[in-house]
Amino acid sequence: VGGAGLVPRVTPISRAAILAVGSELLTPLRLDTNSLFVTEQLNTLGVEVAFKCVIGDDRAELAHAVRTALDRVDLLICSGGLGPTDDDVTRDVVADVLGCPLAEDESITERLRTRFRTRFKSEMPEINRRQAMVPAGARVIENANGSAPGLWIDHGERVVLLLPGPPRELKPMLSALLQGPLRDRASGVALRRRILKIAGRIESQTEEQLRPLYARWREWAVPVDATILAALGQIELHLSARHAHPAESEAAIEVAVADVLATLGPDVFSTDGRNLEQVVGDLLAAQRLRIALAESCTGGLITSRLTDVPGSSRYVERSVVSYSNDAKVELLGVPDATIREHGAVSDPVARAMAEGMRAHAPVDVGVGVTGIAGPDGGTPEKPVGTVAIAVATSAETRSRVFRFVGEREQVKFQASQAALDMVRRMLA
Amino acid sequence: VGGAGLVPRVTPISRAAILAVGSELLTPLRLDTNSLFVTEQLNTLGVEVAFKCVIGDDRAELAHAVRTALDRVDLLICSGGLGPTDDDVTRDVVADVLGCPLAEDESITERLRTRFRTRFKSEMPEINRRQAMVPAGARVIENANGSAPGLWIDHGERVVLLLPGPPRELKPMLSALLQGPLRDRASGVALRRRILKIAGRIESQTEEQLRPLYARWREWAVPVDATILAALGQIELHLSARHAHPAESEAAIEVAVADVLATLGPDVFSTDGRNLEQVVGDLLAAQRLRIALAESCTGGLITSRLTDVPGSSRYVERSVVSYSNDAKVELLGVPDATIREHGAVSDPVARAMAEGMRAHAPVDVGVGVTGIAGPDGGTPEKPVGTVAIAVATSAETRSRVFRFVGEREQVKFQASQAALDMVRRMLA
Repeated sequence: VGGAGLVPRVTPISRAAILAVGSELLTPLRLDTNSLFVTEQLNTLGVEVAFKCVIGDDRAELAHAVRTALDRVDLLICSGGLGPTDDDVTRDVVADVLGCPLAEDESITERLRTRFRTRFKSEMPEINRRQAMVPAGARVIENANGSAPGLWIDHGERVVLLLPGPPRELKPMLSALLQGPLRDRASGVALRRRILKIAGRIESQTEEQLRPLYARWREWAVPVDATILAALGQIELHLSARHAHPAESEAAIEVAVADVLATLGPDVFSTDGRNLEQVVGDLLAAQRLRIALAESCTGGLITSRLTDVPGSSRYVERSVVSYSNDAKVELLGVPDATIREHGAVSDPVARAMAEGMRAHAPVDVGVGVTGIAGPDGGTPEKPVGTVAIAVATSAETRSRVFRFVGEREQVKFQASQAALDMVRRMLA
Repeated sequence: VGGAGLVPRVTPISRAAILAVGSELLTPLRLDTNSLFVTEQLNTLGVEVAFKCVIGDDRAELAHAVRTALDRVDLLICSGGLGPTDDDVTRDVVADVLGCPLAEDESITERLRTRFRTRFKSEMPEINRRQAMVPAGARVIENANGSAPGLWIDHGERVVLLLPGPPRELKPMLSALLQGPLRDRASGVALRRRILKIAGRIESQTEEQLRPLYARWREWAVPVDATILAALGQIELHLSARHAHPAESEAAIEVAVADVLATLGPDVFSTDGRNLEQVVGDLLAAQRLRIALAESCTGGLITSRLTDVPGSSRYVERSVVSYSNDAKVELLGVPDATIREHGAVSDPVARAMAEGMRAHAPVDVGVGVTGIAGPDGGTPEKPVGTVAIAVATSAETRSRVFRFVGEREQVKFQASQAALDMVRRMLA
């Protein structure tokens, strides 16, 4: 827009809402995933998403949602409902709410006719003319990958964007706007974000320890925002900061990360987005160590997670899923007597499995995991969720008995997380 | 409620809104997936979802969304924001909007204290008392899997449900309500739904074969609706019908299922919701067969999937993840010469792995899987995604070489799906 003083300054866009339109998105079968992409793109411009909604192909509901959004945000992005059928109501409803009458844009009709002739070797069906209807004053956004053009509508200082629903149409259209008109309207105070991952702790205690930090971070010249999230077997801490110079945001987050590390120590296993299997894999690769695992209750899950990481064949040598006692004895040399004396789920058996794995395979690290994943097989002394884990290296064998809570798959996952975390702490 | 005439009849609940609360759900990193489950459950009662929204941990936005929803629907389900921290605003905001003051429910506090003592061997942090705050007149919904209780609040003829965000807490709580108080409040024109799962086909061809059936089903007295969904390694066909008598819907769906089976034959592996590992497990259990797997590129994933099924220790004897060539030779007796002649990723090696597994373990079925999961390791003749799979039984060994498309984890999953499907077809 340029030329200081020549045009009135408009307030920069800072808050957006996303409306995904389509009855199929209100079934149990479909999720609106466009909004993740839209959010990510908007955040890079410093625009925050205040809320997002999914609305069916329903004029009344959509009109209400559009009105609500215009009351509360500077930028409204609607995806979907721009097709040629009666179900496609977005264009009509938005024009109605904004009070801009629709008129056919002949250049769009022409483009549609050409598209049908070249792509589908057929005449354009008459219903597709609806896609050429444009609200007065709107700008047309070209769609290279489909028939529905997008629309940019200025409404006072607010902007309404209508984009088609298919991701391969929406994404390039939004990306192009990000490089031009949207960038020019945003504040430029971009958001930077960092995720810390934490193992071996529970959420509320972690929150209590971190709360004094949150308070301090909020007072900084570039304040850092924190959100804590408990996931199965780990806690995530999301840090974010915004500043016109991204380097300033990064610097503030860097200091906040250092604060967390000083408070939680080695319980923080990732500050760069890597998951636990990547962290363990990188430690093994860096130290040129090979690993073999003897998994019982985890049924191969730990090895499967480790081998999800590209390049893991450098350090994963083999594993054994010793579901039966026979397999524990034959493949790992676990003494029959140890199983009889302590039971298959016991600290001594986990240690014998880890050490047996090291003895039978040409590896540096052996892991043994044995437990009761449930729902059956629990006893009063060893309830469902009891899992014994041992990690053996050339220097020592460490072991621990855990009690996990949850369903079978959750016990398996938590056991895999605990085993990987034990390996990480021994190698770190 | 019962006793005709004794209590005023309330209008049945027919329209719901779902609000997912949590700033993390407004980042590019997280999707609200609870709403899929909630929608499915509500649909079974004949309740339709009018819209759904995601709101951050923001009092003003949440209050506005709650007010809007109460204007437009009979049932509002909020998930998330019931934790003990300052970010958890759902309880406060909803109580505020509804005008019900919060008071501490000592019985909840007591339960929380006990939970902390028994689960975490620690005293309850004081902040957790916030989870015992209950709006006047609300009913408490017990949470067997977490600290946050749910709340059922009657607001005139409307119902507001507050449920915790973690799916493993929300799901059982909602399911329990579906069996009781929610069912009693719904209209009863329930939707019935059936999911058919199909392996070994591609979507567009399947769709073409099924299209004539769709047209026929739509003409029925109780019409059956169909949606086809391609997932990784399988296709799902969702059938649904609605009628005041659920038996009528079930009967119509039953005939539609028979039509599909007649058209697609044994490619349909599940008509009752079971996944492939359950179907294979049930076949093994019914025939009293035991299985052992030699996994290379799948890294334990197949065994992990099989052992996700409760009771799988009856038929999973052991597995070997033979990531290195040494392991293939030592643990499975794959001849060195076979590896040298054909390469580790080859049909003869897969066969030798499957048969070696049968020879080394006391099992009936042996499986061998070897492939290139990528991103590295591909060659012109054996590109990334090449996977050889063999299944050996006492009667025969079958093998096949596949070429899967996708990233490493997708190749692993498709290979696991193909291997399980081969076992299924051999046992069926």
